[in-house]
Amino acid sequence: MIRAGVVGATGYAGAELVRLLSGHPCAELAAISSVSFQGKPLSEVYPAYYQLCDRICGTQEEVVEQSDVVFAALPHGLSQELAKECFEKGKVFIDLGADFRLENEEDYQEWYGGTYRYPELHEASVYALPELFREAIRGKKILANPGCYTTAVPLALAPALKNGLIQKEGILADCKSGVTGAGRKLTQNTHYPELNEGMSAYKVASHRHTPEMEQSLSRVAGSKVKITFVPHLLPVNRGILATCYAKLTDGVTMEQMQNAYREAYGEEYFIRLLPQGREADIKNVRYSNFCDISLHIDTRTNTFIAISAIDNMVKGAAGQAIQNMNLVFGFNETTGLKLFPPAF
Amino acid sequence: MIRAGVVGATGYAGAELVRLLSGHPCAELAAISSVSFQGKPLSEVYPAYYQLCDRICGTQEEVVEQSDVVFAALPHGLSQELAKECFEKGKVFIDLGADFRLENEEDYQEWYGGTYRYPELHEASVYALPELFREAIRGKKILANPGCYTTAVPLALAPALKNGLIQKEGILADCKSGVTGAGRKLTQNTHYPELNEGMSAYKVASHRHTPEMEQSLSRVAGSKVKITFVPHLLPVNRGILATCYAKLTDGVTMEQMQNAYREAYGEEYFIRLLPQGREADIKNVRYSNFCDISLHIDTRTNTFIAISAIDNMVKGAAGQAIQNMNLVFGFNETTGLKLFPPAF
Amino acid sequence: MIRAGVVGATGYAGAELVRLLSGHPCAELAAISSVSFQGKPLSEVYPAYYQLCDRICGTQEEVVEQSDVVFAALPHGLSQELAKECFEKGKVFIDLGADFRLENEEDYQEWYGGTYRYPELHEASVYALPELFREAIRGKKILANPGCYTTAVPLALAPALKNGLIQKEGILADCKSGVTGAGRKLTQNTHYPELNEGMSAYKVASHRHTPEMEQSLSRVAGSKVKITFVPHLLPVNRGILATCYAKLTDGVTMEQMQNAYREAYGEEYFIRLLPQGREADIKNVRYSNFCDISLHIDTRTNTFIAISAIDNMVKGAAGQAIQNMNLVFGFNETTGLKLFPPAF
Amino acid sequence: MIRAGVVGATGYAGAELVRLLSGHPCAELAAISSVSFQGKPLSEVYPAYYQLCDRICGTQEEVVEQSDVVFAALPHGLSQELAKECFEKGKVFIDLGADFRLENEEDYQEWYGGTYRYPELHEASVYALPELFREAIRGKKILANPGCYTTAVPLALAPALKNGLIQKEGILADCKSGVTGAGRKLTQNTHYPELNEGMSAYKVASHRHTPEMEQSLSRVAGSKVKITFVPHLLPVNRGILATCYAKLTDGVTMEQMQNAYREAYGEEYFIRLLPQGREADIKNVRYSNFCDISLHIDTRTNTFIAISAIDNMVKGAAGQAIQNMNLVFGFNETTGLKLFPPAF
Repeated sequence: MIRAGVVGATGYAGAELVRLLSGHPCAELAAISSVSFQGKPLSEVYPAYYQLCDRICGTQEEVVEQSDVVFAALPHGLSQELAKECFEKGKVFIDLGADFRLENEEDYQEWYGGTYRYPELHEASVYALPELFREAIRGKKILANPGCYTTAVPLALAPALKNGLIQKEGILADCKSGVTGAGRKLTQNTHYPELNEGMSAYKVASHRHTPEMEQSLSRVAGSKVKITFVPHLLPVNRGILATCYAKLTDGVTMEQMQNAYREAYGEEYFIRLLPQGREADIKNVRYSNFCDISLHIDTRTNTFIAISAIDNMVKGAAGQAIQNMNLVFGFNETTGLKLFPPAF
Repeated sequence: MIRAGVVGATGYAGAELVRLLSGHPCAELAAISSVSFQGKPLSEVYPAYYQLCDRICGTQEEVVEQSDVVFAALPHGLSQELAKECFEKGKVFIDLGADFRLENEEDYQEWYGGTYRYPELHEASVYALPELFREAIRGKKILANPGCYTTAVPLALAPALKNGLIQKEGILADCKSGVTGAGRKLTQNTHYPELNEGMSAYKVASHRHTPEMEQSLSRVAGSKVKITFVPHLLPVNRGILATCYAKLTDGVTMEQMQNAYREAYGEEYFIRLLPQGREADIKNVRYSNFCDISLHIDTRTNTFIAISAIDNMVKGAAGQAIQNMNLVFGFNETTGLKLFPPAF
Repeated sequence: MIRAGVVGATGYAGAELVRLLSGHPCAELAAISSVSFQGKPLSEVYPAYYQLCDRICGTQEEVVEQSDVVFAALPHGLSQELAKECFEKGKVFIDLGADFRLENEEDYQEWYGGTYRYPELHEASVYALPELFREAIRGKKILANPGCYTTAVPLALAPALKNGLIQKEGILADCKSGVTGAGRKLTQNTHYPELNEGMSAYKVASHRHTPEMEQSLSRVAGSKVKITFVPHLLPVNRGILATCYAKLTDGVTMEQMQNAYREAYGEEYFIRLLPQGREADIKNVRYSNFCDISLHIDTRTNTFIAISAIDNMVKGAAGQAIQNMNLVFGFNETTGLKLFPPAF
Repeated sequence: MIRAGVVGATGYAGAELVRLLSGHPCAELAAISSVSFQGKPLSEVYPAYYQLCDRICGTQEEVVEQSDVVFAALPHGLSQELAKECFEKGKVFIDLGADFRLENEEDYQEWYGGTYRYPELHEASVYALPELFREAIRGKKILANPGCYTTAVPLALAPALKNGLIQKEGILADCKSGVTGAGRKLTQNTHYPELNEGMSAYKVASHRHTPEMEQSLSRVAGSKVKITFVPHLLPVNRGILATCYAKLTDGVTMEQMQNAYREAYGEEYFIRLLPQGREADIKNVRYSNFCDISLHIDTRTNTFIAISAIDNMVKGAAGQAIQNMNLVFGFNETTGLKLFPPAF
């Protein structure tokens, strides 16, 4: 039994980590922290947790002290010091924020406006999207857990890109996100009456997840890939639907495409390649760690369309973080994560 | 490991049973049946189940043959023959329909329009609401699993009624149900554009669950209790919110009331008595087997208000059926049912 | 053409007033004010209004100066001074807040915690629920426009109460409100992910609208009436559904009841008495000034159930305010308010 | 006062026509018909219309006889005979179906599987998207009213395409539709519990609206344009959000782009070009005839993104049909259509 701690437990990703860890047979929740709700039980913030996690929110220091693995669900910029502390104390650090995601510090500076204070920590860290970069993750102590869009889009496109079945130029990702992706913080555009029955794009071609997606796609492709990324906010609680478009390489057939995906993901428990004729739907992956993928070809325009659906809070945040914990600690990767999505 | 079968697996309650049984450590899903989808995999009906339950829907006969316990999620009227067959073959039969719920055949005739074809089976059966009638359930082979409203309302009122803290005359239950309670069958009033942003009552003072609630409340009270019951349809997927009103017995205090509830439910894992100042909310019990209860007194009018919230598909159907299975087979009652409700 | 001004135009009720006034043939929007958004166009706050009302939010003083009728959509407590100013300048003042609703100052002190600073203004004011108190409204200069619950509940019960068809003791109102009723202000419980798929009661038997309802019902009944009032928050934008319960007077039939309602409301354009067998539904009155009412009797328990549905922003706020304006200025009461509710 | 009739009044588009016509000062609803509900009042199908349109559904023949203009909201394939009858009797015929939308009969055969029975009627008909083809519409007697997607996408792209600011190759339209677009007919995927909290694409690159969009875009561009079109179903009632992507012509600036749109649409009442920094949102056009358009450029990939939002039932069906009626009968084009969208 390892001891797991959650820093930032009262945010949405933190709360979901607590919920999922409660069902993990090899990890126990050792400590949680919150700046805003320190001294209060987590179930006061989330009444759904009443009698299940009435644990009091403590300090970040307490979490580090009492844990073998520290999950950080913090606003961008706050993870570097915490990572340093964990690293020095020999703890595994899994960051759900963006501080360790970008290899290139200039990208971080450009998109997040900060600097890398401890370059050696970034050297020691790894970008932890298991289905694409599993081998690099094992043995690491600082893990950058991908964001939600940045899980859905690369998983949708990687096999096609890796095998040269699509062109690297002109890739588009039109993504739709559930509202939990915007977090617990109150904003006018997530106020119920103003979001309900609405839908719009936001941060058009300027969302911070862009360089992170490009980094993954470039690694997979073996050369620099740029994409156009337009996120939309959906009036549902959970889910990322990523509709990804690319020019098909001349002569590529649906059969070749399916073979490439089957080869890449056939053994992946958390990726479900849908039978032809079905479309990935966020409804079908809710509350699970699955990534559903459907493949389509527009033969009229020679366009490849890959659609992926994940639960942004699970495969797009807390579930994947636990998957990474399993990987690092040598547990079976699906331990505690065989979550059966409800049909309704 | 016992073998569990589900007759009517493609209805909502049946599908939820399949999902919950998949996580039960002492029962395995042995067989499923469906009239409408016989020969087809369950995951074709519910794509969320893809690669998790691709089992083919067989016949009712196959289910009986291959199971130690048979759950029936059938339209009212179809369970009696099945119960007979199970009973003769020594199987445990847990009926999620209404055929065995009413002790009084005249009530069944009046509200459901059918007759009791095998009175001896009704003798052998038991009304299986564990928190109120646990002792009567053990050792039984035919269990009538309560409906959703008929779980929420009696649990909300039983301790007050049993201890004489409220008057038996003039009890009202104003209930609000999520749409899954109406089942998978298509109807105009559950067509998305016509229900969305709407809310109304239905079957005002004429819903079939009325005599079933009165039966439970009368047993608890020790004499005949009649209630006014008005159900409403809510534009949410899951949940029953039961706002129950009764005249307070003169002089009864909130403290006495809370003591009575604590005494009745203090040891019940699945009932959460909320701290004063909170209100039961269907959001907090979704996807769990909990029944949250909050107590309120209107001192201006001497009225007692008990509000209960359950997930209609879990505590109001499939979860409670598994709880009953646990009870009958001697497992710990919470086995496979420690479901942690998501906060969002 | 009269000149209408809106103080507090950026709140929900104020914004709805602006929208409805835009279609009024005898009134023009003369000025709007907002404390939070002074100097900004209304369409910046509500992009739906772009190119329709880009008018700049000014000050309260400007509104008073430039208007013949001043609508105030302000937080409770802020209307008294404004009323004084309007009164002295001979303007008609229609208050959508609570400062002039309660005849009895002690009630105001108890439920709102304030005092009546200008008793003579309260003398001059009138409680303006046209269908019940029309004659008193004509000729008045200070109108207290009822709140949403306090429109729906008295309209549902008045004819029964007035004609002695129900008992005055033991009346209950179980009400369900759309989220716009909670206003534009951000709160955790109206944050999209936390309200969506949820439902609960709030302010159980302690909501400020209680004395206001009792005041109307008492006037109608001719003696003091007390009620139990439990409001619930619904995950829909608009609507109040009021399910009202009362003990039927012995021997009263549905026919008598219907006659009483027909007599009271048969000539009222804005009240639609539904045919027997239908239930009032908030969906059917959205974006209109209608109050739909359905009548039901539980013959098993001798209980009368009246259900009313209104759009809380229209008949429960801005629409009724304009109806009152029409009444005071001698326009046909339906002028600008023949709003045809969409079916979906 | 002209007499307007609606054939297929009980479908969603038909019902919306009835509602909008009720507010038209120069047209009166003369007759309605329905096959499924003949002999029944429209308000029985749509209780929201109670006391507003209790008119009895008659036959198609009655509608033709009693009307100057006949709107047809029929399933594809049923309009040709009706058009013939109207044409012979000198009535104006406005078809909300697809039978007259495609100039090229082969396209109709390929995508709809039917033939053109009366070529001379197709000669006499016109494709009636006023903002793009206004001059061609005047004086015509058979009007093909565009579909919802086919209004939103061409309006979003036309000025850029016409002025050569984007490339004709590689245009993509990722569209999101509210559920009313799927009509009143019950289907499993529009059953409330199965759509709620879900979202997916459908008919990927195979939707029948594709050739219709290409027809409009080709006319505007002056040469054949092909596009990739992927529609998605959204859990909201109303709205089309069209996110359209195209390669920017080298060197084109945002200023040039805005100028082109301003020139094209500056005088169009129903098109609102949003200020830079805002995104078109379906919420802001609900229940109105507006088409909101926002323009964006991804300078990193040289991609133009135009986003349009309409109410699929108004500008995408009934509203535009009335706009066309206004045009044909010489009324001001905005008559009866100055609908102020609610903010919530």
